[in-house]
Amino acid sequence: MADFWRSPLDPERVVNTRVTHWQNSEQEQREEYLTVEEPLELRLAGRSLAVIMRTPGHDEELAAGFLLTEGIIEHPGDLLAVRMASDDDGLPLPNVSEVILREQRMREVVESAFTRHFAVSASCGLCGKDSINAVLSTSEPIEDDDLRIDASYLYDLSARLREAQAVFTHTGGLHAAGLFNEQGELVLLREDVGRHNAVDKLIGHGLLHRTLPYARFVLLVSGRTSFEIIQKALRARIPCIAAISAPSSLAVELAGQSGITLIGFLRARTMNVYTHAQRIISIPPALSD
Amino acid sequence: MADFWRSPLDPERVVNTRVTHWQNSEQEQREEYLTVEEPLELRLAGRSLAVIMRTPGHDEELAAGFLLTEGIIEHPGDLLAVRMASDDDGLPLPNVSEVILREQRMREVVESAFTRHFAVSASCGLCGKDSINAVLSTSEPIEDDDLRIDASYLYDLSARLREAQAVFTHTGGLHAAGLFNEQGELVLLREDVGRHNAVDKLIGHGLLHRTLPYARFVLLVSGRTSFEIIQKALRARIPCIAAISAPSSLAVELAGQSGITLIGFLRARTMNVYTHAQRIISIPPALSD
Repeated sequence: MADFWRSPLDPERVVNTRVTHWQNSEQEQREEYLTVEEPLELRLAGRSLAVIMRTPGHDEELAAGFLLTEGIIEHPGDLLAVRMASDDDGLPLPNVSEVILREQRMREVVESAFTRHFAVSASCGLCGKDSINAVLSTSEPIEDDDLRIDASYLYDLSARLREAQAVFTHTGGLHAAGLFNEQGELVLLREDVGRHNAVDKLIGHGLLHRTLPYARFVLLVSGRTSFEIIQKALRARIPCIAAISAPSSLAVELAGQSGITLIGFLRARTMNVYTHAQRIISIPPALSD
Repeated sequence: MADFWRSPLDPERVVNTRVTHWQNSEQEQREEYLTVEEPLELRLAGRSLAVIMRTPGHDEELAAGFLLTEGIIEHPGDLLAVRMASDDDGLPLPNVSEVILREQRMREVVESAFTRHFAVSASCGLCGKDSINAVLSTSEPIEDDDLRIDASYLYDLSARLREAQAVFTHTGGLHAAGLFNEQGELVLLREDVGRHNAVDKLIGHGLLHRTLPYARFVLLVSGRTSFEIIQKALRARIPCIAAISAPSSLAVELAGQSGITLIGFLRARTMNVYTHAQRIISIPPALSD
């Protein structure tokens, strides 16, 4: 049986355990860190809406972000509250969040959840274009703006994200998403075992603090970019997404059609710009002061 | 608008595109590879069961593996066929797979999909233990067996997986899952933009070819291990899972309770064994011939 104890480093998100560490043909017992993964259940009107496997912490943000980026709410104002659920005696239920929506939206969600599930599909095939159209039918593309980002600014971001990831260095088990302003300052960092969750937490923070849309920010993610990451960022109106690794074809296509600048392989002093490259410029050092 | 063309390397899974490549303050136009991501819709009795974002290829395996590892079917015999769906004129529908189940199972699935969704939750909290109990209520733990694996054997696996990943080297965008036999031979490799999909394809292959259970195999995954990866492997009765990166706390807990040997940070000639370490041994070179 696995034996865990809370890490003094970050008791909510890190546990310690004992492992057999092998090097060549030698083995020894060691203490190692693990990132915590636990389920979070979202309830609406007392019923289960979703169970998300996540790293605890910022659960309200995760719930709010998930609702917005998955299209369960359409406007920040649809969400009235996120609170820890409680039992009949008022005692808190661990890992359960109750979401309260505006009454009309609540009714729509309950109805559509029943009809959408197991719905009869249109009798045509499915393709990437359909997935993109589905996203763009509820989110307008981002129009070209005057946001111009210096390449050198971008090269610094991944180092800044890593510096801020205290947990990452200990467990190697967390994905990170960081939100940077035009001055290259990290304004918000969220980590999670789930890549999507880290982005949802960032966006949920904006929803709860009324700082959406994120129209003048750059989102940096620690791994790869998939269709879903772009879909979520579009909901928060983020005009520029950078990633340490590769994007998928559908991520590039959705970013292209959504007006989002998509950057990949941001490493050392190189990067690839896949879409809307006009936002990336090089400012000579003499002019950048 | 993104401009893609099929790569001659692997036209189904790789597309080429043009990117702006930056190095320091210099930019140039370059041709780059992208991994294809496309939706796959699974239909049951003409109704939509799930839409999975995946890399095309081995779609039948993905469908079969998904059904088994998500508990939609309980036994390989529940699945009668997976076929490309077609419209009323018999023309194939791209990216849509129709799954045919035994009649009784079909009825159960249709009923449970309606009742399970939006079901009233039990009025207690939720925790990792509940998630583990839910898995173990449908899958028995794997009993201790006589499988004994030499540490040197494991050290070689990640190099073998990488050698076999032709696509990986071009796009950097694919997760890989490999199945190795007791002799350290790679018997099956599957790649996908989704980590879970690569594992589902491996398991679906076994289901379609009647080679399940995978009771004498080692599963190697290219990234991290989460709860869901262990859950899927347990369904296929895989006794040993190795990963290049870190496991989560709940992955370790589920592996521990499922009788699965879980290895992480398999790099060069080191590794951590988190659970059921008795299966890993060191055979002196003189004896290993």
